[in-house]
Amino acid sequence: MAVTLLGLGTMGTAIAQSWRAAGIKPTVWNRTRKSPEDADTAAAAVAANQLVVTCLLDDDSVTTVLDDVDLTGKDLVNLTTSTPEQSRDRATWATERGARFLDGGIMAVPPMIGTPAAFVFYSGSPAVVDDHRDVLAVPARIHYVGEDPGHAALYDVALLSGMYGMLAGVTHAFALLRAEDIDPTTFAPLLVDWITTTTGSAHDLAHRLTTGDYTTNVTSNLGMQAAGIPTFVDTAKSQGVDPRLLMPYFDLMAQRAAAGKSQEDTAGLVDDLR
Amino acid sequence: MAVTLLGLGTMGTAIAQSWRAAGIKPTVWNRTRKSPEDADTAAAAVAANQLVVTCLLDDDSVTTVLDDVDLTGKDLVNLTTSTPEQSRDRATWATERGARFLDGGIMAVPPMIGTPAAFVFYSGSPAVVDDHRDVLAVPARIHYVGEDPGHAALYDVALLSGMYGMLAGVTHAFALLRAEDIDPTTFAPLLVDWITTTTGSAHDLAHRLTTGDYTTNVTSNLGMQAAGIPTFVDTAKSQGVDPRLLMPYFDLMAQRAAAGKSQEDTAGLVDDLR
Repeated sequence: MAVTLLGLGTMGTAIAQSWRAAGIKPTVWNRTRKSPEDADTAAAAVAANQLVVTCLLDDDSVTTVLDDVDLTGKDLVNLTTSTPEQSRDRATWATERGARFLDGGIMAVPPMIGTPAAFVFYSGSPAVVDDHRDVLAVPARIHYVGEDPGHAALYDVALLSGMYGMLAGVTHAFALLRAEDIDPTTFAPLLVDWITTTTGSAHDLAHRLTTGDYTTNVTSNLGMQAAGIPTFVDTAKSQGVDPRLLMPYFDLMAQRAAAGKSQEDTAGLVDDLR
Repeated sequence: MAVTLLGLGTMGTAIAQSWRAAGIKPTVWNRTRKSPEDADTAAAAVAANQLVVTCLLDDDSVTTVLDDVDLTGKDLVNLTTSTPEQSRDRATWATERGARFLDGGIMAVPPMIGTPAAFVFYSGSPAVVDDHRDVLAVPARIHYVGEDPGHAALYDVALLSGMYGMLAGVTHAFALLRAEDIDPTTFAPLLVDWITTTTGSAHDLAHRLTTGDYTTNVTSNLGMQAAGIPTFVDTAKSQGVDPRLLMPYFDLMAQRAAAGKSQEDTAGLVDDLR
């Protein structure tokens, strides 16, 4: 149950604290020393344990910190935010240096670390997960998504992208009410319930993407939805709200409906983005 | 328990069926006759009952169908899709013709009508709700949001706007995975869970809008989130996905962060849309 942690930003600090709370004393290093007990150099911290976890600013920082450090025989777990491409390149880089590699995408903000709500997408070496499961599971649940080292980052970015779309919709919705005498805290539960209910449509969308059938049992087709766009645009304008957050999706719907696909469900819009 | 229904599109038909299933036989009229039992004219259908429900194509259709019909003493419930402005104008129009007016925004697709999941936002005359509660509650739960006749349409459009943002995020998320050997139906539950969890942030956002405090207890501020944008854009591009659905929200975050508000939560973006 020994681990080295490189990087003590807010996320790294939360992870270190979760380990200490579980009785695991990590060997830590940070670019700027945070405590007298910290390792003097990244190389010294890496030398101390087989399991080395990085939680640095960005992918370039991983190169800067570790490029001249001996990684032979190490198990490198990279929790630094990265794109799938960067994670795949990092896996090759780590393997060339004699290390086993596991990439992780943290699905939590620092205050959630150590709570049941936090989880990490991992991909890469399954042996690293098996050999260090007890340590890795302390800060957040382990969700392993396969050997492709880019997939953890891909799942991470995909979920957060979905979230940012939802946040854009929420932002627009609250803006519509801002000119009225309506309490946002009274409206919020209605909005949360509605989005929670309608998010379930992602299951049907996934099924359609798998089968390629975009037209059977469509309850509200693209043509009908496109016909409703003026109501959304006109309402936004008369409420003094710029509709720009929603326009790209409306345009995508209108374009596909106009291209002879008006009887389809929205699943085909996924194809049109590519 | 008598009611007239004007408009037998898919929604009107579902509403009429829910009444019949509950033992209420509506007097119905449609622009093109659907059954020999239908009323000959809209005027005849309106004359038959005090409660008149419209479920027509759009706001213009309401004028076309009812402008020459005597509405004196009628209770007009307008379920036709409209903007808040159109609903307010319709309330004035109905009052001038001697009718009481209630506007409704249906939060359901036709197959949901008559099930517990369906509800309708109503606003306008509270007396119309009180006098016809038993009839109105059959197709969908009643959610009355006040006397301003525009508010039902506003709540309706606001919830659906939030949903469209969510759908845009979901579309982008699935597109990111489309080039990989990842089963969409395996990914969907993760995405649904994540959006469901993070939608809860709308409560905090509403509270901030009420207090005007955008800076206390911010776990992931605009500066930190704006710094992450390249990861989303680069991932989209390397996965062959056009990031246009998410760019307006990212741009809004980046602009506010650059305008000296990097320590803030995202709540201020609501103000920037206006």
